[in-house]
Amino acid sequence: MSTKFDLRLFASLGRKIVAVGRNYREHAAELGNVVPSEPLLFLKPPSSYVQEGKAIKVPPVCTELHHEVELGVVIGQSGSRVPEEKAMDYIGGYTLALDMTARDLQSAAKKKGHPWTVAKGYDTFCPVSRFLTKAEVREPQNARLWLKVDGSTRQDGTTKDMIFNIPTLLSYISGIMKLEPGDVILTGTPAGVGSVRPGQRITAGIDSVVTMEFPVEADK
Amino acid sequence: MSTKFDLRLFASLGRKIVAVGRNYREHAAELGNVVPSEPLLFLKPPSSYVQEGKAIKVPPVCTELHHEVELGVVIGQSGSRVPEEKAMDYIGGYTLALDMTARDLQSAAKKKGHPWTVAKGYDTFCPVSRFLTKAEVREPQNARLWLKVDGSTRQDGTTKDMIFNIPTLLSYISGIMKLEPGDVILTGTPAGVGSVRPGQRITAGIDSVVTMEFPVEADK
Ligand SMILES: [Mg+2]
Ligand SMILES: [Mg+2]
Ligand SMILES: [Mg+2]
Repeated sequence: MSTKFDLRLFASLGRKIVAVGRNYREHAAELGNVVPSEPLLFLKPPSSYVQEGKAIKVPPVCTELHHEVELGVVIGQSGSRVPEEKAMDYIGGYTLALDMTARDLQSAAKKKGHPWTVAKGYDTFCPVSRFLTKAEVREPQNARLWLKVDGSTRQDGTTKDMIFNIPTLLSYISGIMKLEPGDVILTGTPAGVGSVRPGQRITAGIDSVVTMEFPVEADK
Repeated sequence: MSTKFDLRLFASLGRKIVAVGRNYREHAAELGNVVPSEPLLFLKPPSSYVQEGKAIKVPPVCTELHHEVELGVVIGQSGSRVPEEKAMDYIGGYTLALDMTARDLQSAAKKKGHPWTVAKGYDTFCPVSRFLTKAEVREPQNARLWLKVDGSTRQDGTTKDMIFNIPTLLSYISGIMKLEPGDVILTGTPAGVGSVRPGQRITAGIDSVVTMEFPVEADK
């Protein structure tokens, strides 16, 4: 890797989180959405990162906070218009991420044609695991992602089922916005999204690689 | 100011650009939008910054690239839930900014209830001037903003006409996402937005404070 950026610090130093919506067929269907013909992108602010030891906060205005477990791709070197066949070279590592979503606010925004920013952007809306090396995630396109709430399984999917795979996403995004070291791509969530409320506990994992745990609290 | 962040480097080091839509009554009207009851927020990626000496690029897919001249507020210290009456203390300075917008892509996204991210997020879609100190912009709520294309005036407004003023915006945004040094708030554009095409030249200014100039080129 040609950068001096310490990728383990991606959550403190990275400058963008590019998230992909509706990238698993069954998840698109469960929210009543059509499968997109090209990747559907939105941004989450880096201020939304939170790491283990802290809580996910439910904003006072939000009555329906949804969990979405996702594989995060951590960019290792700068790239614009990266060809798909070179995409894996631009990846520095991975992270396990939750794309927390105020579904009520998102639904209202969608109806009005408004941006998704607030629904996706509150503080603590992007819980992440530690940085995972490429050696740890040897088969990023064959990884089992799971999420439990208070011990009950809510999401259990595999990155095999992505509609647009990782090289396609990285190539597509880099044709719009330059990717930089420490940037993260959230690659979409498998089916099973649903609500959490204060007092509950989310655990999530990438099978045989990492697990993480976050309590959910009301933000007063 | 309690930070060691060199705010003159906001475009290289800042981690978020929070933009406000429809914050001038006449501009909301010219695009056929209703005046919002609360600030309408979206994000632009920091990779979209461009500074003088470089060109604004028209993406190949975009047939209608609009200029929006705006006052940018550069955050000087971290703050969450900042009260309006303290908001000015969190401002480190200002910048003159253009919120370049692929209006065709934005209109399509709005119709589908999709995020505005791509329409607002291409590389070079956030041209900015140098950092302006608070001493230079003594009356941020009484500043004349203008923009010309090839020497003809397209936008000529005053920050007096903002629907939500700067303290209101800063307070509102910081209640959703923590503001950090180097973050920029784009405070919305006055009326007169319109298209530019390759070969044209945009000049813009804050009266008696700063002017800037960017050529427009096709991105091939
Ligand atoms: Mg957005
Ligand atoms: Mg998601
Ligand atoms: Mg604007």
